[in-house]
Amino acid sequence: MALIIEKRFMIEAIAEAKLALAADEVPVGAVVVMGSEIIARAHNTVEVSRDGTLHAELRALQFAAKAVGNRRLSECILYVTLEPCAMCAGACVNARIGALAFGAYDAVAGACGSVVSLTDGVLGNVVVPTIGGIYGEQCGKLLTSYFKEKRR
Amino acid sequence: MALIIEKRFMIEAIAEAKLALAADEVPVGAVVVMGSEIIARAHNTVEVSRDGTLHAELRALQFAAKAVGNRRLSECILYVTLEPCAMCAGACVNARIGALAFGAYDAVAGACGSVVSLTDGVLGNVVVPTIGGIYGEQCGKLLTSYFKEKRR
Repeated sequence: MALIIEKRFMIEAIAEAKLALAADEVPVGAVVVMGSEIIARAHNTVEVSRDGTLHAELRALQFAAKAVGNRRLSECILYVTLEPCAMCAGACVNARIGALAFGAYDAVAGACGSVVSLTDGVLGNVVVPTIGGIYGEQCGKLLTSYFKEKRR
Repeated sequence: MALIIEKRFMIEAIAEAKLALAADEVPVGAVVVMGSEIIARAHNTVEVSRDGTLHAELRALQFAAKAVGNRRLSECILYVTLEPCAMCAGACVNARIGALAFGAYDAVAGACGSVVSLTDGVLGNVVVPTIGGIYGEQCGKLLTSYFKEKRR
């Protein structure tokens, strides 16, 4: 089965990021898509949970594993508004996610090309087909507005 | 506060790994120590949960965050029987764990020096002081025995 990246799903990830923003969390959102259906959606809940592992991607991957009853998600695509960090890129590799689409690039902690590249086969020869920059400006603006507000 | 690695805590991580083995999981165990107290302990539950994110380290970090009510664990040490993968090494960096001690090295997926090195400051200049090989042979033998059994 070919996996086709569809930009419309990034809009759904952005909607999740906006929920994070409304909850005073760093605005990152993610959805996991199988076929043409969203099977999991999540946003960052690090602040409210006081748990640094609860990034949007990690939560979405956990919900997706529950939804399909399988730790392997090779028929799924993860859409996330920000380039995954090492933890989340590693989780994508562990889950053998079929493809990864992200919005804004992360020059500080991005682990899908920006700082390190974990999805290109370096880990156990697992390659996660990855595309960045989908609605990147819109995704990035959400983050900028959050951090601007914090600096006041 | 100086963080001192104490080998005795690796024995506790090994006890957790043995619980995983008894549950037919890849035998990896972890404990998080603050001061001289174990504040979290966990083993790998990937198979039973069918969730590829539920590695011993990630679960132990989550339990530790709950225990201290803080997403930053800079006064804690994580002891784990196997060199963390990228997901778990990334989680250590995100949590600003004070130090990391692991048992066996992982030549396939180890992200603390073996395949990639994520704990040495490459991610946002965060350095996690790390030591490997503590009771490494014992930790490795548990893994070998598990995979031998699977191959029968």
